[in-house]
Amino acid sequence: MSEIRQNIITRDWVIMATERAKRPHELVSSKKERPTLPAYKDNCPFCAGNEALATKEYVRIEDENGWSVRIIANKFPALSPEGDRVRNDDGLHRTISGIGIHEVVVESPIHNAIFAKLSLNQIYNVLLAYKIRYTQIRNDHRFEAIVIFKNYGETAGSSLEHTHSQIAATPVVPFQFRDRIQEAIRYFDDHGDCIICRTLLDEIATQSRIVAENSSFLAFIPYAALTPFHIWIFPRMHCSSYDNISEEEMKDLASILKFVLLKLYHGMGDPDYNYTIRTAPLADKESRYFHWYLSVIPRINKSAGFELGSGMYINSSIPEESAEYLRKVVVPEMDKC
Amino acid sequence: MSEIRQNIITRDWVIMATERAKRPHELVSSKKERPTLPAYKDNCPFCAGNEALATKEYVRIEDENGWSVRIIANKFPALSPEGDRVRNDDGLHRTISGIGIHEVVVESPIHNAIFAKLSLNQIYNVLLAYKIRYTQIRNDHRFEAIVIFKNYGETAGSSLEHTHSQIAATPVVPFQFRDRIQEAIRYFDDHGDCIICRTLLDEIATQSRIVAENSSFLAFIPYAALTPFHIWIFPRMHCSSYDNISEEEMKDLASILKFVLLKLYHGMGDPDYNYTIRTAPLADKESRYFHWYLSVIPRINKSAGFELGSGMYINSSIPEESAEYLRKVVVPEMDKC
Repeated sequence: MSEIRQNIITRDWVIMATERAKRPHELVSSKKERPTLPAYKDNCPFCAGNEALATKEYVRIEDENGWSVRIIANKFPALSPEGDRVRNDDGLHRTISGIGIHEVVVESPIHNAIFAKLSLNQIYNVLLAYKIRYTQIRNDHRFEAIVIFKNYGETAGSSLEHTHSQIAATPVVPFQFRDRIQEAIRYFDDHGDCIICRTLLDEIATQSRIVAENSSFLAFIPYAALTPFHIWIFPRMHCSSYDNISEEEMKDLASILKFVLLKLYHGMGDPDYNYTIRTAPLADKESRYFHWYLSVIPRINKSAGFELGSGMYINSSIPEESAEYLRKVVVPEMDKC
Repeated sequence: MSEIRQNIITRDWVIMATERAKRPHELVSSKKERPTLPAYKDNCPFCAGNEALATKEYVRIEDENGWSVRIIANKFPALSPEGDRVRNDDGLHRTISGIGIHEVVVESPIHNAIFAKLSLNQIYNVLLAYKIRYTQIRNDHRFEAIVIFKNYGETAGSSLEHTHSQIAATPVVPFQFRDRIQEAIRYFDDHGDCIICRTLLDEIATQSRIVAENSSFLAFIPYAALTPFHIWIFPRMHCSSYDNISEEEMKDLASILKFVLLKLYHGMGDPDYNYTIRTAPLADKESRYFHWYLSVIPRINKSAGFELGSGMYINSSIPEESAEYLRKVVVPEMDKC
């Protein structure tokens, strides 16, 4: 019989469909065919040399070869940085002006770079750029929440070839954030502990779901993973907001993130994926009950009517088996993180 | 500037990305190429004549030509109908046994039938089969919620050619249900009214988001639609559970559902879609604050990292414009519903 597990952090119920479960290797697709790209493209606004094609620049990290990472305005932003936060509500129609941040993090000057294969120093620069921009945005009191995310590959929603991620800020706290914060506060009330710190200790004690670890981070497949090979990377140190990340932690995060993404690349046939940094709403800069983390979601399954209709998930893989599989995947580029 | 709207029924915030909004016709794909299928396939367990290949039958609706609709066991169910509801919880790991219902509703005996093009009587039979099975499942006190849904096309998660939908029952109330019920109760507390009845009256008064209507139902694009051409079909009569639907209502639902799906078929290039019936948890058979409805979600957009990371949505179409477009789409098969 299947087992239904509840993710106590998100409260989602997940059907671990053991009757139709697939062994990890059955979920490996044949290596994804990606288009062959040139190192430079003359009409790409993200390529080194084409800075004039791009919109406004907010952050530039340099290394010995010139710029390494830039954060620039989005040409077609979903939210506009100008304007006031105006709220309208007649009881049935609630709106707020579409102000916010929606920017592009250009992760490399080279057109055909692949994020997981960037140097550790380059990934560190991406993480540093996130932190710098986060700290700047925090001072704008029109905004309530920051979302940092990456779309890799077409099924993950990416439409541009040149490797990039995105940073957005919204003038409201999304309902999903509020839900999770409420659950975290409730756990704190009941146990006097951060639910994420507690889960971290449990994963270390259990061992079976761990994919990788280093001195600052633990990467594991959640007990009630929503989808196959969904991976959470938790900082060991309690901290609610990403902008408090230390230099040491950024180095360790670059290393474990690269290691985990390369395990997917070599072990799962280079799947499309998203990652997102889940961090506290801006008004909760330092809280005892929330703890930021990074979530990697490979696009291995499609969600269908059952998920839409119930908000529950059906996972056709077993987290403990998937973690064991990933632990064994050899990463030629690095032997540890 | 974009406008951010909150759907007060689901509490989701949706960015109506006017700056990059698309006119309705820009969202029309060229007509989806569907494989040409035979009317009968000898190894298809859903085809008339192959009943012996199928698993257990729970419901059979007949017409003058033999069976019209059947509900049968799923060969690879995510949940198993046998067993007790056993709950385990050590504070961090919460599980419940994977008991439940996960069955297939064969919507026609003919292999290459297309749901939207079935006769009104045939669609009525599908809706009747849902009701009959719902009423049977309700008596099993191991289950808390019923989800009825359809996946049409590959991007909507369908893997079988022969037209079918699914009915599932779960031993827990999904968190998403609980969230929405709580919001509905809160609205009832504040206003003494069902939030869905109230929205229905507002849509009738506003007119601009209506796609179609008949004496029992209103089909409209929600004020804060999550995705382009997302359509809600609300019964005019307050009723919390689908199994209370009347014969008259089933006739009208068959008609409006067919009409709306044909508008998508002719007007949007036959997109993949899901539909789902949202109905109260089984313990709330008759409640003042919840009202069942049917939701149609065409797969026109892909969700990406922003949606995953924030739980907010970016909709690149304007509900009022999309509704106007759909109202004008000519449906050769029917002139009204």
